[in-house]
Amino acid sequence: MSTIQDVARHAAVSVSTVSNVLNGRTDRMRGDTLARVQAAIAALQFRPNNLARRLKTGHTPLIGLLVPSIANPMYGYIAREIETHAQERHGYRVLTGNTYRDKVKEDAFFQDLLAHGVRRVIVISSLADEGHFEMAVRRGMAVVSYDRRATPGSKTGVDHITPDNFEAARLATEHLIAHGHTRLAFATVAGMTMSRSAKIAGFQAAAERVGAQGRVLDGGPLHEYGDSVISEVGRALGLRIAGQARRPTGIVAVNDLMALGLMAGLREGGLQVPRDVSVVGMDGLHLSSLSNPGLTTVQLPIPEMARAMVESVISREPGAGAAASERVFTPTLLIERESVGPAPATAAKAAAGRGARQTKQTRIRA
Amino acid sequence: MSTIQDVARHAAVSVSTVSNVLNGRTDRMRGDTLARVQAAIAALQFRPNNLARRLKTGHTPLIGLLVPSIANPMYGYIAREIETHAQERHGYRVLTGNTYRDKVKEDAFFQDLLAHGVRRVIVISSLADEGHFEMAVRRGMAVVSYDRRATPGSKTGVDHITPDNFEAARLATEHLIAHGHTRLAFATVAGMTMSRSAKIAGFQAAAERVGAQGRVLDGGPLHEYGDSVISEVGRALGLRIAGQARRPTGIVAVNDLMALGLMAGLREGGLQVPRDVSVVGMDGLHLSSLSNPGLTTVQLPIPEMARAMVESVISREPGAGAAASERVFTPTLLIERESVGPAPATAAKAAAGRGARQTKQTRIRA
Repeated sequence: MSTIQDVARHAAVSVSTVSNVLNGRTDRMRGDTLARVQAAIAALQFRPNNLARRLKTGHTPLIGLLVPSIANPMYGYIAREIETHAQERHGYRVLTGNTYRDKVKEDAFFQDLLAHGVRRVIVISSLADEGHFEMAVRRGMAVVSYDRRATPGSKTGVDHITPDNFEAARLATEHLIAHGHTRLAFATVAGMTMSRSAKIAGFQAAAERVGAQGRVLDGGPLHEYGDSVISEVGRALGLRIAGQARRPTGIVAVNDLMALGLMAGLREGGLQVPRDVSVVGMDGLHLSSLSNPGLTTVQLPIPEMARAMVESVISREPGAGAAASERVFTPTLLIERESVGPAPATAAKAAAGRGARQTKQTRIRA
Repeated sequence: MSTIQDVARHAAVSVSTVSNVLNGRTDRMRGDTLARVQAAIAALQFRPNNLARRLKTGHTPLIGLLVPSIANPMYGYIAREIETHAQERHGYRVLTGNTYRDKVKEDAFFQDLLAHGVRRVIVISSLADEGHFEMAVRRGMAVVSYDRRATPGSKTGVDHITPDNFEAARLATEHLIAHGHTRLAFATVAGMTMSRSAKIAGFQAAAERVGAQGRVLDGGPLHEYGDSVISEVGRALGLRIAGQARRPTGIVAVNDLMALGLMAGLREGGLQVPRDVSVVGMDGLHLSSLSNPGLTTVQLPIPEMARAMVESVISREPGAGAAASERVFTPTLLIERESVGPAPATAAKAAAGRGARQTKQTRIRA
């Protein structure tokens, strides 16, 4: 398969000139240069996807990406992976909008994007009701939904890509159980999405397996700004937990940002992580490696899911109402850092046996 | 002035029905309901900005927001503030794209947005050359540039909104000087933007005022992902500094994300912040309040600047080549947390005098 470099060499121009032709930036290009590049593209049968469309319209096609809040670095991470794959592999550009998990806002965005000629949309939402997604498909869009499974029996073609949220939470909880914790809690926010429900179920399944306590602690609502204030909800919850006489010793947080806030709140409440309370996050955000102590977390397979979302939204014919599909990605990686230690009683016994706990090194295990 | 609630009461419908009319979602509305709402809007002279346009097109107008990388939470924060103001005050929606401070990508985005009917764009870039912004204005767009001042004498109408980056860095540096630090460093990344240059100048001016050492330490390039890896560059730089025999005792970081990475690297290198090295950030990201120790930082007036950007991009006639304008916002707030302490020599003297340093409480001062 020929590359853009081959085309540049064949046409005796720079790679950026070929790139300008591919992206329709030809308004200040000499006619013979343009003709030479086009001839080289034809001679070498250089065919990135959507080349035909780009040569015709002179513009890169767009994918709309709707996220609850760009201010949550998790969506920044996913957006980056989606964009890298969409642009490098398919020549699509990505435009991102904030919806705050509000059905009315999501629906309005669908209509605006459609009105502006954008017909392929990836939505991170996890709402139980996807009627407005199905309506968007009927109006002529291709829609991929992230972070929940397909509605059983749904007849309208919305593709679903999601991590196995049940399994992610189960893995996090089993890690606490393996460290001797039996007073367990799941820290979340008010308001139930499909992904939060699945995580709570995974947490409870692991706790029940060993007959451990498994409380769900709800730090309250996210107010106006959606996910961007989730760390503040975590901080308030951490402070509240620190004041409890009989508090959990091991906490699974609904995501990394919640976990980082939770650790700050526990610290402000006078507790030490992991000496007094162990914390596990979910997501595998880069930020979780910067915290002190470093956050142990379940790494979701973001790059793989981002690629699948792009392939799905590009390959589907907009508006075609084929059956809803789903692909579930199972997280298998727990990144072990310093936020989990033995349960306090276990730690006391271990300390009596061998003097003192060793500092744990960061390591990654499958 | 009448409100949307007044319109709903007058038309005897719900507020969401009025909202549906305002946003053009009338396809499943009964004709008499629509007529009643429109009559109420007319009777009460209810006129949010752009209502006329929305009633005509049936769609909310869009503002394009181009940022170096959504994966940097600073741009998530700015994007949220811009969107809140644009939507609540003017009924505009915002679509965000990543440009990695790449002139070619920025230019391609301008063309794509224009092709999709989006004519108002806010760009966070701080590149020295804004020729492609001026070209976009000539093609019929309204462009607002964030984080640098206007090019003197520029004839094409690009509006500039920026913090006073010189003053922000000066303020951060003076805070270290006030704590007795004389071995000062400015931690940045490879590649000079207008804002980085201004910050370095402010740092050096403060250092020179007291005859202190003022080194500029460059942690290296940002590679492919732009600003999203800036904390990793900070971490590597922190590790490098920790290994130096004669290292700085007070460091100003080019932004909060760099500062958070720097603190992680110093910690991994065996140093304690602020006992061995003090660190000050710039931005005032929410994340800086979650770190351990909490990051002392210069708070930039983000909400005020976001409002000014929205007002500017909406009030300007797209394509009209009036003179370039600029508004500079001076940061006056340093949020004092736990990452700055006395310079090591000063600390030793103070400790001899009064036993031990007290833990500093978080406080905010103007």
